[in-house]
Amino acid sequence: MRLAVIPGDGIGPEVIAEALKVLGEVVPAAEITRYDLGAARWHATGELLPESVLGELRQHDAILLGAVGDPSVPSGILERGLLLRLRFELDHHVNLRPARLYPGVRSPLADPPEIDMVVVREGTEGPYAGNGGLLRKDTPHEIATEVSLNTSFGVERVVRDAFARASNRQRRHLTLVHKTNVLTHAGSLWSRVVEEVSLQHPDVTVAYQHVDAATIHMVTDPGRYDVIVTDNLFGDILTDLAAAVTGGIGLAASGNMDVTRRNPSMFEPVHGSAPDIAGQGIADPTAAVLSVALLLDHLGEHESARRIEASVAFDLATRDHQSPGATYGIGDRLAALVSSNVRTG
Amino acid sequence: MRLAVIPGDGIGPEVIAEALKVLGEVVPAAEITRYDLGAARWHATGELLPESVLGELRQHDAILLGAVGDPSVPSGILERGLLLRLRFELDHHVNLRPARLYPGVRSPLADPPEIDMVVVREGTEGPYAGNGGLLRKDTPHEIATEVSLNTSFGVERVVRDAFARASNRQRRHLTLVHKTNVLTHAGSLWSRVVEEVSLQHPDVTVAYQHVDAATIHMVTDPGRYDVIVTDNLFGDILTDLAAAVTGGIGLAASGNMDVTRRNPSMFEPVHGSAPDIAGQGIADPTAAVLSVALLLDHLGEHESARRIEASVAFDLATRDHQSPGATYGIGDRLAALVSSNVRTG
Ligand SMILES: CC(C)[C@H](C(=O)O)[C@@H](O)C(=O)O
Ligand SMILES: CC(C)[C@H](C(=O)O)[C@@H](O)C(=O)O
Repeated sequence: MRLAVIPGDGIGPEVIAEALKVLGEVVPAAEITRYDLGAARWHATGELLPESVLGELRQHDAILLGAVGDPSVPSGILERGLLLRLRFELDHHVNLRPARLYPGVRSPLADPPEIDMVVVREGTEGPYAGNGGLLRKDTPHEIATEVSLNTSFGVERVVRDAFARASNRQRRHLTLVHKTNVLTHAGSLWSRVVEEVSLQHPDVTVAYQHVDAATIHMVTDPGRYDVIVTDNLFGDILTDLAAAVTGGIGLAASGNMDVTRRNPSMFEPVHGSAPDIAGQGIADPTAAVLSVALLLDHLGEHESARRIEASVAFDLATRDHQSPGATYGIGDRLAALVSSNVRTG
Repeated sequence: MRLAVIPGDGIGPEVIAEALKVLGEVVPAAEITRYDLGAARWHATGELLPESVLGELRQHDAILLGAVGDPSVPSGILERGLLLRLRFELDHHVNLRPARLYPGVRSPLADPPEIDMVVVREGTEGPYAGNGGLLRKDTPHEIATEVSLNTSFGVERVVRDAFARASNRQRRHLTLVHKTNVLTHAGSLWSRVVEEVSLQHPDVTVAYQHVDAATIHMVTDPGRYDVIVTDNLFGDILTDLAAAVTGGIGLAASGNMDVTRRNPSMFEPVHGSAPDIAGQGIADPTAAVLSVALLLDHLGEHESARRIEASVAFDLATRDHQSPGATYGIGDRLAALVSSNVRTG
């Protein structure tokens, strides 16, 4: 297993250290190559993602990223030049974001039900395509456009992936989230594709919700969701909300995946670089560890993935959430749990 | 005061009846003209918004709408052909949506703070412009586009309105919500306009949040918001979420406003036609009543507006939320409270 690791900025390197500690327990022979992409490199060299580095990344089985971003970098530079560029160059069309309320974790909701959903967010199209511009900038007649691009090819592949995932889950339920009553063109394409693919999955029940209604149900009735499939921007919004109701982005893992496996997929915690707490050794590495589980699942190492998830679940159920421990302490605990499972399980 | 009233479909007519009952207590001389726009008229005649009706609507001081929509009408028809058309034809650029957690109302949040915010949602641009299309429909090479249009003119007028509202509030805080790190063109325009207008409002503190982060804070820390200004689509999503955390869209009122007063503004409850409970007399008319308060505020009848709001607040603080009463019962109660305030206050 050849892994490229991008620790990144802020708490990125701190949580990655623990994630690799846990990975070492299940795949001791993993070959790790580190890449110093992120704010620091951009400041030092002006480089975001040199072609040579991109070429090297392609030679790996998967990529693990901590977080990139720093207040010293103008907004949009690292996002469009590095994070989104990786998603587009490596054709990460399935942006996978599970949201589960683990026993022991406090939800901001008063009366949370069981929550266990997976959001399949499209990753390479929609309003994220970078298609748009400014006309007559800095005049009273300025116009700014952003074009959402949606293709049959692009929508179908994520919808197929979402149905396949729904088929493999217990509840076999899929919800399309869009805004078909206003974004009628893109909405029409998404609806037709879901309808067509559903014919091949009579085992999966299908629902539709407008994105505004979905945010309501995400706080009043999140237990209804099993698999959600949605576009890039709606997915961005809904997954942060789903993370919030399941205890915060501190626990949310994600995969940016080329499910055809032509390119390496990239796995990362959703929390970002959190510069306010960086360097203090107090960041929770759990989301990074769960990202390793997603990575292993993607590479077919399902048993190792389950072992990591079970260890995280056990730790969350038993930890003192007021003082969960330092970053390395949580990492040590999770690594020990994973390794003891190795022996006993 | 000449008011056009569009009761609409589903529970629309039921809640409008109560709203007018309450209005009658403060403006007994209001002249009311009813228009039968909505699903029923579309089914009967194929008409959505005839030019003649639009012309008549323009002759009024304001419009009060119940709700339009029915499952029997294909998605998008009434939305684009009637609701959005009204917003565009009447230049309803300020879509005003207050969200307040009234004492006595149960939030789905475990530990809700005081919540009292106003979202100023842009109403005539952005992804709602209807600019987009389908190419190669029903082929494997289909492309669907949706273009978000943002103009200096359009953004500036809502940003100015939002700053003016913030200036008049106690906390004087304004949050711009966008996704500037991904939608860099539109994001740049919105950010620059907020920065420029803020120079004329040194009394207002300004914050920025990405829309995904805003959904998190809407459930973990909604008390932080005072005035939010945002684009049409983000506003659609955020206001439903804000309504949810403050007790549900059953209580949410909204104004679609041309703040220049060249065209009549339109006020409506956010809840929609709720066909599942229509005709049973159990819909809560509170949001429709609060919409009347927004209408009166817009027409300068501030004292009447405050009286209605105070009556609603009193009723919500004292009602039995398990069985709040029938639609007409709640309307009677609110009307009585408003009228008693007239005598005592
Ligand atoms: C950082 C940003 C570009 C990114 C996105 O919008 O996709 C982030 O919010 C995420 O969800 O991974
Ligand atoms: C019905 C629909 C067109 C509308 C919107 O998207 O604006 C509604 O959701 C709202 O928020 O008023």
